[in-house]
Amino acid sequence: MRRLADATVAVVGLGLMGGSLALALAEARACRRLVGVDSDEATCRAALAQGCVQAADTQLELLAEADAVVLATPARAILALLPRLAGHLRPGTIVADLGSTKREITLAMAELPAWLEPIGGHPMCGRETAGFGAADATLLRGAFFALTPLARTAPATLDFARALVQAVGARPLVLDAAEHDAMVALTSHLPFLAATALVATVEESAPEHELLYRLAATGYADTTRVAAKSTPVMLDILLTNRAEVGRAARACARQLLALADLIDAGRETELRQALAAAADTRRALAARREGAAR
Amino acid sequence: MRRLADATVAVVGLGLMGGSLALALAEARACRRLVGVDSDEATCRAALAQGCVQAADTQLELLAEADAVVLATPARAILALLPRLAGHLRPGTIVADLGSTKREITLAMAELPAWLEPIGGHPMCGRETAGFGAADATLLRGAFFALTPLARTAPATLDFARALVQAVGARPLVLDAAEHDAMVALTSHLPFLAATALVATVEESAPEHELLYRLAATGYADTTRVAAKSTPVMLDILLTNRAEVGRAARACARQLLALADLIDAGRETELRQALAAAADTRRALAARREGAAR
Repeated sequence: MRRLADATVAVVGLGLMGGSLALALAEARACRRLVGVDSDEATCRAALAQGCVQAADTQLELLAEADAVVLATPARAILALLPRLAGHLRPGTIVADLGSTKREITLAMAELPAWLEPIGGHPMCGRETAGFGAADATLLRGAFFALTPLARTAPATLDFARALVQAVGARPLVLDAAEHDAMVALTSHLPFLAATALVATVEESAPEHELLYRLAATGYADTTRVAAKSTPVMLDILLTNRAEVGRAARACARQLLALADLIDAGRETELRQALAAAADTRRALAARREGAAR
Repeated sequence: MRRLADATVAVVGLGLMGGSLALALAEARACRRLVGVDSDEATCRAALAQGCVQAADTQLELLAEADAVVLATPARAILALLPRLAGHLRPGTIVADLGSTKREITLAMAELPAWLEPIGGHPMCGRETAGFGAADATLLRGAFFALTPLARTAPATLDFARALVQAVGARPLVLDAAEHDAMVALTSHLPFLAATALVATVEESAPEHELLYRLAATGYADTTRVAAKSTPVMLDILLTNRAEVGRAARACARQLLALADLIDAGRETELRQALAAAADTRRALAARREGAAR
Protein backbone atom coordinates (compact mmCIF):
# COMPACT_ATOMS: atom_id res chain seq x y z
CA MET A 1 0.00 0.00 0.00
CA ARG A 2 1.23 3.46 -0.93
CA ARG A 3 1.75 6.38 1.41
CA LEU A 4 -0.75 9.22 0.99
CA ALA A 5 1.93 11.45 -0.57
CA ASP A 6 2.52 8.86 -3.31
CA ALA A 7 -1.12 7.91 -3.82
CA THR A 8 -3.76 8.69 -6.42
CA VAL A 9 -6.93 9.57 -4.51
CA ALA A 10 -10.36 9.53 -6.18
CA VAL A 11 -13.30 11.42 -4.68
CA VAL A 12 -16.73 10.20 -5.79
CA GLY A 13 -19.33 12.94 -5.39
CA LEU A 14 -18.00 16.50 -5.65
CA GLY A 15 -20.71 18.21 -3.61
CA LEU A 16 -20.25 20.24 -0.41
CA MET A 17 -18.33 17.52 1.47
CA GLY A 18 -16.48 15.78 -1.38
CA GLY A 19 -15.66 19.08 -3.03
CA SER A 20 -14.37 20.51 0.27
CA LEU A 21 -12.20 17.40 0.81
CA ALA A 22 -10.78 17.66 -2.74
CA LEU A 23 -10.06 21.37 -2.33
CA ALA A 24 -8.35 20.79 1.03
CA LEU A 25 -6.26 17.85 -0.27
CA ALA A 26 -5.22 19.90 -3.31
CA GLU A 27 -4.36 22.94 -1.22
CA ALA A 28 -2.24 20.79 1.11
CA ARG A 29 -0.61 18.97 -1.88
CA ALA A 30 -1.32 15.91 0.24
CA CYS A 31 -1.36 13.26 -2.52
CA ARG A 32 0.39 12.59 -5.83
CA ARG A 33 -2.75 12.85 -7.93
CA LEU A 34 -6.40 13.69 -7.27
CA VAL A 35 -9.30 12.67 -9.53
CA GLY A 36 -13.03 13.22 -9.20
CA VAL A 37 -16.20 11.41 -10.25
CA ASP A 38 -19.58 13.13 -10.21
CA SER A 39 -22.85 12.24 -11.94
CA ASP A 40 -23.23 15.88 -12.96
CA GLU A 41 -21.15 16.93 -15.97
CA ALA A 42 -21.17 20.62 -15.04
CA THR A 43 -19.76 19.75 -11.60
CA CYS A 44 -16.94 17.76 -13.23
CA ARG A 45 -16.13 20.75 -15.47
CA ALA A 46 -16.24 23.14 -12.49
CA ALA A 47 -13.84 20.96 -10.46
CA LEU A 48 -11.44 20.66 -13.41
CA ALA A 49 -11.61 24.41 -14.07
CA GLN A 50 -10.93 25.09 -10.39
CA GLY A 51 -7.83 22.91 -10.74
CA CYS A 52 -8.29 20.85 -7.57
CA VAL A 53 -8.61 17.56 -9.55
CA GLN A 54 -6.37 16.49 -12.43
CA ALA A 55 -9.17 14.47 -14.03
CA ALA A 56 -12.95 14.33 -13.58
CA ASP A 57 -15.64 12.24 -15.20
CA THR A 58 -19.22 11.07 -14.77
CA GLN A 59 -18.15 7.40 -15.13
CA LEU A 60 -16.57 5.07 -12.58
CA GLU A 61 -13.87 3.97 -15.12
CA LEU A 62 -11.67 6.76 -13.72
CA LEU A 63 -11.40 4.82 -10.45
CA ALA A 64 -9.11 2.20 -12.07
CA GLU A 65 -6.09 4.38 -11.40
CA ALA A 66 -6.93 5.09 -7.74
CA ASP A 67 -4.99 3.85 -4.74
CA ALA A 68 -7.79 5.13 -2.51
CA VAL A 69 -11.42 5.96 -3.27
CA VAL A 70 -13.45 8.28 -1.01
CA LEU A 71 -17.21 7.97 -1.50
CA ALA A 72 -18.71 11.40 -0.76
CA THR A 73 -22.30 11.06 -1.98
CA PRO A 74 -25.39 10.98 0.27
CA ALA A 75 -25.56 7.83 2.43
CA ARG A 76 -27.95 5.77 0.32
CA ALA A 77 -26.02 6.54 -2.86
CA ILE A 78 -22.94 5.16 -1.07
CA LEU A 79 -24.89 1.98 -0.27
CA ALA A 80 -25.85 1.72 -3.98
CA LEU A 81 -22.28 2.40 -5.16
CA LEU A 82 -20.44 -0.11 -2.94
CA PRO A 83 -21.57 -3.31 -4.76
CA ARG A 84 -20.61 -1.71 -8.13
CA LEU A 85 -17.01 -0.84 -7.13
CA ALA A 86 -15.29 -4.24 -7.47
CA GLY A 87 -15.57 -4.14 -11.28
CA HIS A 88 -13.66 -0.84 -11.40
CA LEU A 89 -10.92 -1.04 -8.75
CA ARG A 90 -7.47 -2.64 -8.58
CA PRO A 91 -6.59 -5.09 -5.80
CA GLY A 92 -5.44 -3.32 -2.63
CA THR A 93 -7.45 -0.15 -3.24
CA ILE A 94 -8.66 1.56 -0.07
CA VAL A 95 -12.42 2.23 -0.04
CA ALA A 96 -13.32 5.04 2.36
CA ASP A 97 -16.37 7.29 2.62
CA LEU A 98 -17.72 10.50 4.15
CA GLY A 99 -21.26 9.18 4.78
CA SER A 100 -23.11 10.73 7.70
CA THR A 101 -24.26 7.37 9.11
CA LYS A 102 -21.88 4.46 9.57
CA ARG A 103 -23.60 1.24 10.63
CA GLU A 104 -25.36 0.37 7.36
CA ILE A 105 -22.43 1.59 5.27
CA THR A 106 -19.80 -0.47 7.14
CA LEU A 107 -22.11 -3.51 6.96
CA ALA A 108 -22.20 -3.03 3.17
CA MET A 109 -18.40 -2.49 3.12
CA ALA A 110 -17.99 -5.85 4.88
CA GLU A 111 -19.46 -7.47 1.74
CA LEU A 112 -16.71 -6.06 -0.53
CA PRO A 113 -14.23 -8.62 -2.02
CA ALA A 114 -11.35 -9.51 0.31
CA TRP A 115 -8.84 -7.78 -2.06
CA LEU A 116 -10.32 -4.34 -1.30
CA GLU A 117 -9.50 -2.37 1.86
CA PRO A 118 -12.57 -0.70 3.37
CA ILE A 119 -12.84 1.84 6.23
CA GLY A 120 -15.74 4.11 7.22
CA GLY A 121 -15.41 7.83 7.85
CA HIS A 122 -17.52 10.86 8.76
CA PRO A 123 -16.26 14.43 9.15
CA MET A 124 -18.25 16.26 11.89
CA CYS A 125 -18.95 19.46 10.00
CA GLY A 126 -21.50 20.77 7.56
CA ARG A 127 -23.34 23.71 6.13
CA GLU A 128 -26.82 24.62 4.89
CA THR A 129 -25.51 25.15 1.37
CA ALA A 130 -24.95 22.29 -1.08
CA GLY A 131 -22.99 21.49 -4.23
CA PHE A 132 -19.42 22.06 -5.45
CA GLY A 133 -20.09 25.80 -5.56
CA ALA A 134 -20.46 25.74 -1.76
CA ALA A 135 -17.34 23.60 -1.20
CA ASP A 136 -14.62 25.22 0.87
CA ALA A 137 -11.07 24.04 1.60
CA THR A 138 -11.43 25.22 5.21
CA LEU A 139 -14.70 23.36 5.98
CA LEU A 140 -12.97 20.33 7.52
CA ARG A 141 -10.27 22.30 9.35
CA GLY A 142 -10.38 21.69 13.09
CA ALA A 143 -13.40 19.36 12.83
CA PHE A 144 -13.48 15.96 14.49
CA PHE A 145 -13.47 13.25 11.81
CA ALA A 146 -14.91 9.91 12.89
CA LEU A 147 -13.15 6.83 11.51
CA THR A 148 -15.04 3.56 11.88
CA PRO A 149 -12.77 0.61 10.99
CA LEU A 150 -14.34 -2.79 10.18
CA ALA A 151 -13.11 -6.01 11.83
CA ARG A 152 -11.22 -6.66 8.56
CA THR A 153 -9.67 -3.17 8.29
CA ALA A 154 -5.85 -3.49 8.14
CA PRO A 155 -3.75 -1.24 10.45
CA ALA A 156 -2.10 0.23 7.31
CA THR A 157 -5.55 1.24 5.99
CA LEU A 158 -6.38 2.98 9.26
CA ASP A 159 -2.99 4.74 9.15
CA PHE A 160 -3.69 5.91 5.58
CA ALA A 161 -7.12 7.24 6.61
CA ARG A 162 -5.61 9.03 9.62
CA ALA A 163 -3.00 10.66 7.37
CA LEU A 164 -5.73 11.83 4.97
CA VAL A 165 -7.78 13.28 7.85
CA GLN A 166 -4.76 15.07 9.29
CA ALA A 167 -3.72 16.36 5.85
CA VAL A 168 -6.95 18.38 5.63
CA GLY A 169 -6.55 19.73 9.17
CA ALA A 170 -9.25 17.57 10.78
CA ARG A 171 -8.95 15.52 13.96
CA PRO A 172 -9.32 11.71 13.66
CA LEU A 173 -11.56 10.00 16.22
CA VAL A 174 -11.71 6.19 15.95
CA LEU A 175 -15.17 4.88 16.82
CA ASP A 176 -17.43 1.85 16.58
CA ALA A 177 -19.93 2.39 13.74
CA ALA A 178 -23.06 1.64 15.81
CA GLU A 179 -21.82 3.86 18.65
CA HIS A 180 -21.16 6.63 16.09
CA ASP A 181 -24.72 6.36 14.80
CA ALA A 182 -26.24 6.44 18.30
CA MET A 183 -24.27 9.59 19.13
CA VAL A 184 -24.91 11.54 15.91
CA ALA A 185 -28.62 10.65 16.19
CA LEU A 186 -28.53 12.83 19.33
CA THR A 187 -26.05 15.57 18.43
CA SER A 188 -26.83 16.02 14.73
CA HIS A 189 -29.96 14.27 13.45
CA LEU A 190 -32.13 15.26 16.42
CA PRO A 191 -31.20 18.98 16.20
CA PHE A 192 -32.18 18.82 12.52
CA LEU A 193 -35.55 17.23 13.38
CA ALA A 194 -36.20 19.64 16.26
CA ALA A 195 -35.42 22.59 13.97
CA THR A 196 -37.68 21.14 11.27
CA ALA A 197 -40.54 20.63 13.76
CA LEU A 198 -40.05 24.19 15.02
CA VAL A 199 -40.19 25.67 11.52
CA ALA A 200 -43.32 23.63 10.74
CA THR A 201 -45.01 24.72 13.98
CA VAL A 202 -44.37 28.42 13.37
CA GLU A 203 -45.28 28.25 9.68
CA GLU A 204 -48.54 26.46 10.58
CA SER A 205 -49.58 29.54 12.59
CA ALA A 206 -48.23 32.12 10.13
CA PRO A 207 -51.57 32.71 8.34
CA GLU A 208 -53.10 33.90 11.66
CA HIS A 209 -50.31 36.39 12.43
CA GLU A 210 -49.43 38.91 9.75
CA LEU A 211 -46.25 40.19 11.43
CA LEU A 212 -45.05 36.82 12.74
CA TYR A 213 -41.70 36.67 10.98
CA ARG A 214 -40.92 40.31 11.79
CA LEU A 215 -40.80 39.21 15.42
CA ALA A 216 -38.41 36.36 14.62
CA ALA A 217 -35.08 37.54 16.01
CA THR A 218 -31.65 35.88 16.09
CA GLY A 219 -32.89 33.24 18.56
CA TYR A 220 -35.37 31.85 16.05
CA ALA A 221 -32.85 32.14 13.19
CA ASP A 222 -30.12 30.24 15.06
CA THR A 223 -32.40 27.56 16.48
CA THR A 224 -33.85 26.76 13.04
CA ARG A 225 -30.74 27.27 10.86
CA VAL A 226 -30.10 23.56 10.26
CA ALA A 227 -33.68 23.00 9.00
CA ALA A 228 -32.48 24.46 5.68
CA LYS A 229 -30.06 21.54 5.12
CA SER A 230 -30.27 19.58 1.86
CA THR A 231 -33.42 17.41 1.87
CA PRO A 232 -31.90 14.51 -0.17
CA VAL A 233 -28.87 14.36 2.15
CA MET A 234 -30.96 14.49 5.34
CA LEU A 235 -33.51 11.98 4.02
CA ASP A 236 -30.67 9.48 3.44
CA ILE A 237 -29.27 10.14 6.90
CA LEU A 238 -32.59 9.68 8.69
CA LEU A 239 -33.53 6.56 6.71
CA THR A 240 -30.16 4.87 7.35
CA ASN A 241 -30.35 5.57 11.12
CA ARG A 242 -34.05 5.00 11.72
CA ALA A 243 -34.05 3.24 15.08
CA GLU A 244 -31.68 5.68 16.80
CA VAL A 245 -33.27 8.77 15.25
CA GLY A 246 -36.82 7.69 16.05
CA ARG A 247 -35.85 7.02 19.67
CA ALA A 248 -34.10 10.39 20.01
CA ALA A 249 -37.05 12.31 18.50
CA ARG A 250 -39.54 10.65 20.88
CA ALA A 251 -37.30 11.36 23.87
CA CYS A 252 -37.09 15.03 22.88
CA ALA A 253 -40.87 15.27 22.36
CA ARG A 254 -41.30 13.82 25.88
CA GLN A 255 -38.98 16.50 27.30
CA LEU A 256 -40.92 19.22 25.50
CA LEU A 257 -44.27 17.91 26.75
CA ALA A 258 -42.88 17.69 30.29
CA LEU A 259 -41.90 21.37 30.07
CA ALA A 260 -45.39 22.21 28.72
CA ASP A 261 -46.94 20.36 31.67
CA LEU A 262 -44.86 22.34 34.18
CA ILE A 263 -45.81 25.63 32.47
CA ASP A 264 -49.51 24.77 32.24
CA ALA A 265 -49.59 23.82 35.91
CA GLY A 266 -47.45 26.80 36.95
CA ARG A 267 -45.05 24.47 38.81
CA GLU A 268 -42.41 27.13 39.22
CA THR A 269 -39.83 25.32 41.34
CA GLU A 270 -39.58 22.31 39.02
CA LEU A 271 -39.62 24.54 35.93
CA ARG A 272 -36.78 26.65 37.35
CA GLN A 273 -34.76 23.50 38.05
CA ALA A 274 -35.30 22.16 34.52
CA LEU A 275 -34.35 25.46 32.86
CA ALA A 276 -31.31 25.98 35.10
CA ALA A 277 -30.04 22.43 34.50
CA ALA A 278 -30.25 22.84 30.71
CA ALA A 279 -28.70 26.32 30.83
CA ASP A 280 -25.79 24.98 32.94
CA THR A 281 -25.26 22.07 30.55
CA ARG A 282 -25.29 24.38 27.53
CA ARG A 283 -22.92 26.89 29.15
CA ALA A 284 -20.50 24.05 30.00
CA LEU A 285 -20.53 23.06 26.31
CA ALA A 286 -19.81 26.65 25.31
CA ALA A 287 -16.88 26.76 27.73
CA ARG A 288 -15.51 23.45 26.38
CA ARG A 289 -15.83 24.67 22.78
CA GLU A 290 -14.03 27.91 23.60
CA GLY A 291 -11.34 25.91 25.40
CA ALA A 292 -10.95 23.63 22.37
CA ALA A 293 -10.75 26.60 20.00
CA ARG A 294 -7.84 28.09 21.91
CA MET B 1 -45.24 66.45 27.96
CA ARG B 2 -41.60 67.07 27.10
CA ARG B 3 -39.84 66.08 23.88
CA LEU B 4 -37.30 63.26 24.30
CA ALA B 5 -34.42 65.71 23.81
CA ASP B 6 -35.63 67.76 26.79
CA ALA B 7 -36.61 64.83 28.99
CA THR B 8 -35.08 63.13 31.99
CA VAL B 9 -35.33 59.38 31.35
CA ALA B 10 -35.01 56.84 34.16
CA VAL B 11 -34.14 53.21 33.42
CA VAL B 12 -35.11 50.73 36.15
CA GLY B 13 -33.01 47.57 35.93
CA LEU B 14 -29.55 48.04 34.41
CA GLY B 15 -29.06 44.47 33.16
CA LEU B 16 -28.45 43.35 29.59
CA MET B 17 -31.51 45.11 28.14
CA GLY B 18 -31.80 48.16 30.40
CA GLY B 19 -28.05 48.68 30.37
CA SER B 20 -27.96 48.43 26.57
CA LEU B 21 -30.80 50.95 26.30
CA ALA B 22 -29.03 53.36 28.64
CA LEU B 23 -25.74 53.01 26.76
CA ALA B 24 -27.46 53.59 23.41
CA LEU B 25 -29.43 56.63 24.67
CA ALA B 26 -26.25 58.10 26.16
CA GLU B 27 -24.23 57.47 23.00
CA ALA B 28 -26.95 59.12 20.89
CA ARG B 29 -27.25 62.04 23.38
CA ALA B 30 -30.96 61.43 22.91
CA CYS B 31 -32.27 62.94 26.17
CA ARG B 32 -31.40 65.78 28.52
CA ARG B 33 -30.59 63.55 31.47
CA LEU B 34 -30.43 59.80 32.10
CA VAL B 35 -30.68 58.17 35.52
CA GLY B 36 -30.66 54.52 36.57
CA VAL B 37 -32.15 52.42 39.33
CA ASP B 38 -30.91 48.92 40.07
CA SER B 39 -31.32 46.73 43.16
CA ASP B 40 -27.62 45.84 42.94
CA GLU B 41 -25.27 48.51 44.30
CA ALA B 42 -22.27 47.30 42.28
CA THR B 43 -24.34 47.64 39.09
CA CYS B 44 -25.23 51.23 40.02
CA ARG B 45 -21.56 52.00 40.59
CA ALA B 46 -20.58 50.36 37.28
CA ALA B 47 -23.17 52.38 35.33
CA LEU B 48 -22.04 55.61 37.00
CA ALA B 49 -18.39 54.79 36.35
CA GLN B 50 -19.17 54.04 32.72
CA GLY B 51 -20.76 57.48 32.51
CA CYS B 52 -23.94 56.50 30.68
CA VAL B 53 -26.16 57.66 33.61
CA GLN B 54 -25.78 60.91 35.53
CA ALA B 55 -27.23 59.37 38.70
CA ALA B 56 -27.86 55.82 39.88
CA ASP B 57 -29.37 54.40 43.02
CA THR B 58 -30.91 51.28 44.49
CA GLN B 59 -34.00 53.23 45.62
CA LEU B 60 -37.03 54.38 43.60
CA GLU B 61 -36.74 57.95 45.05
CA LEU B 62 -34.58 58.82 42.05
CA LEU B 63 -37.65 58.43 39.80
CA ALA B 64 -39.18 61.66 41.15
CA GLU B 65 -37.19 63.71 38.64
CA ALA B 66 -38.10 61.54 35.63
CA ASP B 67 -40.29 62.58 32.68
CA ALA B 68 -40.27 58.99 31.49
CA VAL B 69 -39.52 55.74 33.32
CA VAL B 70 -38.51 52.60 31.43
CA LEU B 71 -38.92 49.40 33.44
CA ALA B 72 -36.24 46.96 32.26
CA THR B 73 -36.36 44.19 34.85
CA PRO B 74 -37.62 40.63 34.20
CA ALA B 75 -41.38 40.50 33.48
CA ARG B 76 -42.63 39.52 36.95
CA ALA B 77 -40.46 42.16 38.61
CA ILE B 78 -42.17 44.71 36.32
CA LEU B 79 -45.56 43.41 37.51
CA ALA B 80 -44.40 43.83 41.11
CA LEU B 81 -42.98 47.33 40.47
CA LEU B 82 -45.99 48.85 38.70
CA PRO B 83 -48.27 49.21 41.77
CA ARG B 84 -45.38 50.82 43.71
CA LEU B 85 -44.66 53.55 41.13
CA ALA B 86 -47.46 56.04 41.88
CA GLY B 87 -45.86 57.02 45.18
CA HIS B 88 -42.63 58.03 43.43
CA LEU B 89 -43.66 59.68 40.14
CA ARG B 90 -44.86 63.15 39.17
CA PRO B 91 -48.13 63.61 37.25
CA GLY B 92 -47.72 63.19 33.50
CA THR B 93 -44.75 60.80 33.75
CA ILE B 94 -44.56 58.22 30.96
CA VAL B 95 -44.31 54.63 32.22
CA ALA B 96 -42.82 52.34 29.60
CA ASP B 97 -41.14 48.95 29.81
CA LEU B 98 -38.94 46.44 27.98
CA GLY B 99 -40.72 43.31 29.30
CA SER B 100 -40.66 40.28 27.04
CA THR B 101 -44.38 39.58 27.44
CA LYS B 102 -46.98 42.28 27.08
CA ARG B 103 -50.52 41.11 27.93
CA GLU B 104 -50.14 40.80 31.73
CA ILE B 105 -47.93 43.89 31.91
CA THR B 106 -50.33 46.15 29.95
CA LEU B 107 -53.23 44.82 32.07
CA ALA B 108 -51.29 45.92 35.17
CA MET B 109 -50.42 49.25 33.51
CA ALA B 110 -54.14 49.85 32.99
CA GLU B 111 -54.48 49.96 36.80
CA LEU B 112 -52.05 52.88 37.15
CA PRO B 113 -53.56 56.21 38.29
CA ALA B 114 -55.04 58.27 35.42
CA TRP B 115 -52.30 60.94 35.88
CA LEU B 116 -49.59 58.51 34.67
CA GLU B 117 -49.00 57.75 30.98
CA PRO B 118 -48.37 54.03 30.35
CA ILE B 119 -47.24 52.24 27.19
CA GLY B 120 -45.83 48.73 26.73
CA GLY B 121 -42.66 47.93 24.80
CA HIS B 122 -40.44 45.00 23.86
CA PRO B 123 -37.24 45.15 21.80
CA MET B 124 -36.86 41.99 19.67
CA CYS B 125 -33.25 41.23 20.46
CA GLY B 126 -31.31 39.40 23.13
CA ARG B 127 -28.23 37.52 24.07
CA GLU B 128 -27.21 34.54 26.22
CA THR B 129 -25.20 36.78 28.53
CA ALA B 130 -26.74 38.79 31.34
CA GLY B 131 -26.03 41.83 33.51
CA PHE B 132 -24.70 45.36 32.95
CA GLY B 133 -21.31 43.88 32.03
CA ALA B 134 -22.92 42.30 28.97
CA ALA B 135 -24.81 45.46 27.96
CA ASP B 136 -23.93 46.86 24.55
CA ALA B 137 -24.99 50.12 22.91
CA THR B 138 -25.40 48.31 19.59
CA LEU B 139 -27.69 45.54 20.86
CA LEU B 140 -30.92 47.32 19.89
CA ARG B 141 -29.63 48.68 16.58
CA GLY B 142 -31.70 47.48 13.64
CA ALA B 143 -33.98 45.36 15.87
CA PHE B 144 -37.75 45.53 15.64
CA PHE B 145 -39.13 47.09 18.83
CA ALA B 146 -42.74 46.22 19.61
CA LEU B 147 -44.83 49.03 21.13
CA THR B 148 -48.13 47.97 22.66
CA PRO B 149 -50.26 51.02 23.51
CA LEU B 150 -53.15 50.66 25.97
CA ALA B 151 -56.63 51.99 25.17
CA ARG B 152 -55.74 54.96 27.40
CA THR B 153 -52.32 55.64 25.84
CA ALA B 154 -52.22 59.24 24.55
CA PRO B 155 -50.92 59.87 21.00
CA ALA B 156 -48.17 62.06 22.51
CA THR B 157 -47.02 59.12 24.67
CA LEU B 158 -46.84 56.86 21.64
CA ASP B 159 -44.88 59.57 19.79
CA PHE B 160 -42.44 59.86 22.71
CA ALA B 161 -41.96 56.06 22.74
CA ARG B 162 -41.39 56.00 18.96
CA ALA B 163 -38.78 58.74 19.28
CA LEU B 164 -37.00 56.78 22.01
CA VAL B 165 -37.00 53.61 19.91
CA GLN B 166 -35.67 55.44 16.87
CA ALA B 167 -33.04 57.24 18.94
CA VAL B 168 -31.39 53.89 19.74
CA GLY B 169 -31.56 52.74 16.11
CA ALA B 170 -34.40 50.24 16.56
CA ARG B 171 -37.54 49.97 14.42
CA PRO B 172 -40.91 50.63 16.11
CA LEU B 173 -43.70 48.13 15.40
CA VAL B 174 -47.07 48.99 16.98
CA LEU B 175 -48.94 45.85 18.06
CA ASP B 176 -51.79 44.60 20.19
CA ALA B 177 -50.40 43.14 23.44
CA ALA B 178 -52.19 39.76 23.17
CA GLU B 179 -51.20 39.43 19.51
CA HIS B 180 -47.59 40.23 20.51
CA ASP B 181 -47.63 37.47 23.12
CA ALA B 182 -49.10 34.90 20.71
CA MET B 183 -46.39 35.69 18.17
CA VAL B 184 -43.38 35.69 20.51
CA ALA B 185 -44.63 32.44 22.05
CA LEU B 186 -43.91 30.94 18.61
CA THR B 187 -40.83 32.85 17.47
CA SER B 188 -38.99 33.27 20.77
CA HIS B 189 -40.36 31.27 23.72
CA LEU B 190 -40.86 28.05 21.73
CA PRO B 191 -37.31 28.10 20.28
CA PHE B 192 -36.04 28.47 23.87
CA LEU B 193 -38.15 25.49 25.04
CA ALA B 194 -37.17 23.35 22.03
CA ALA B 195 -33.49 24.13 22.66
CA THR B 196 -33.95 23.33 26.37
CA ALA B 197 -35.67 20.01 25.57
CA LEU B 198 -32.88 19.17 23.10
CA VAL B 199 -30.14 19.87 25.65
CA ALA B 200 -31.96 17.76 28.26
CA THR B 201 -32.43 14.88 25.80
CA VAL B 202 -28.77 14.78 24.82
CA GLU B 203 -27.53 15.22 28.40
CA GLU B 204 -29.81 12.39 29.55
CA SER B 205 -27.91 10.04 27.20
CA ALA B 206 -24.45 11.47 27.88
CA PRO B 207 -23.51 8.88 30.56
CA GLU B 208 -23.90 6.10 27.95
CA HIS B 209 -21.67 7.79 25.34
CA GLU B 210 -18.22 8.88 26.43
CA LEU B 211 -17.42 10.90 23.29
CA LEU B 212 -20.92 12.35 22.82
CA TYR B 213 -20.04 16.04 23.01
CA ARG B 214 -16.97 15.60 20.79
CA LEU B 215 -19.43 14.77 18.02
CA ALA B 216 -21.49 17.89 18.69
CA ALA B 217 -20.65 20.18 15.78
CA THR B 218 -21.90 23.67 14.89
CA GLY B 219 -25.42 22.32 14.16
CA TYR B 220 -25.89 21.28 17.78
CA ALA B 221 -24.25 24.44 19.09
CA ASP B 222 -26.49 26.76 17.04
CA THR B 223 -29.70 24.86 17.66
CA THR B 224 -29.17 24.89 21.42
CA ARG B 225 -27.55 28.31 21.86
CA VAL B 226 -30.64 29.99 23.36
CA ALA B 227 -30.96 27.29 26.05
CA ALA B 228 -28.17 29.16 27.91
CA LYS B 229 -30.39 32.24 28.41
CA SER B 230 -30.90 33.60 31.91
CA THR B 231 -33.15 31.26 33.91
CA PRO B 232 -34.85 34.02 36.00
CA VAL B 233 -35.64 36.03 32.86
CA MET B 234 -37.00 33.03 30.93
CA LEU B 235 -38.97 31.75 33.93
CA ASP B 236 -40.76 35.11 34.13
CA ILE B 237 -41.43 35.08 30.40
CA LEU B 238 -42.87 31.56 30.36
CA LEU B 239 -45.00 32.10 33.47
CA THR B 240 -46.48 35.37 32.14
CA ASN B 241 -47.39 33.78 28.79
CA ARG B 242 -48.49 30.34 29.95
CA ALA B 243 -51.44 29.62 27.67
CA GLU B 244 -49.69 30.63 24.44
CA VAL B 245 -46.40 28.97 25.37
CA GLY B 246 -48.03 25.71 26.47
CA ARG B 247 -50.01 25.55 23.23
CA ALA B 248 -46.92 26.22 21.09
CA ALA B 249 -44.83 23.59 22.93
CA ARG B 250 -47.52 20.93 22.46
CA ALA B 251 -47.87 21.78 18.77
CA CYS B 252 -44.12 21.43 18.30
CA ALA B 253 -44.03 18.10 20.18
CA ARG B 254 -46.81 16.88 17.84
CA GLN B 255 -44.73 17.87 14.80
CA LEU B 256 -41.70 16.06 16.20
CA LEU B 257 -43.70 12.90 16.92
CA ALA B 258 -45.21 13.03 13.41
CA LEU B 259 -41.67 13.11 11.97
CA ALA B 260 -40.67 10.18 14.25
CA ASP B 261 -43.70 8.21 12.98
CA LEU B 262 -42.71 8.80 9.33
CA ILE B 263 -39.12 7.72 10.07
CA ASP B 264 -40.14 4.63 12.05
CA ALA B 265 -42.50 3.55 9.26
CA GLY B 266 -39.99 4.43 6.51
CA ARG B 267 -42.64 6.56 4.75
CA GLU B 268 -40.13 8.19 2.45
CA THR B 269 -42.41 10.27 0.21
CA GLU B 270 -44.20 12.00 3.09
CA LEU B 271 -40.94 12.45 5.01
CA ARG B 272 -39.31 14.06 1.95
CA GLN B 273 -42.30 16.42 1.60
CA ALA B 274 -42.15 17.43 5.27
CA LEU B 275 -38.38 18.07 5.19
CA ALA B 276 -38.53 19.96 1.89
CA ALA B 277 -41.41 22.17 3.07
CA ALA B 278 -39.53 23.16 6.25
CA ALA B 279 -36.27 23.70 4.34
CA ASP B 280 -38.08 25.96 1.84
CA THR B 281 -39.71 27.95 4.65
CA ARG B 282 -36.38 28.37 6.44
CA ARG B 283 -34.55 29.39 3.24
CA ALA B 284 -37.25 31.99 2.52
CA LEU B 285 -36.67 33.45 6.00
CA ALA B 286 -32.92 33.56 5.37
CA ALA B 287 -33.53 35.39 2.07
CA ARG B 288 -35.87 37.90 3.78
CA ARG B 289 -33.35 38.51 6.57
CA GLU B 290 -30.55 39.09 4.07
CA GLY B 291 -32.83 41.42 2.12
CA ALA B 292 -33.66 43.36 5.30
CA ALA B 293 -29.98 43.57 6.28
CA ARG B 294 -29.07 45.21 2.95
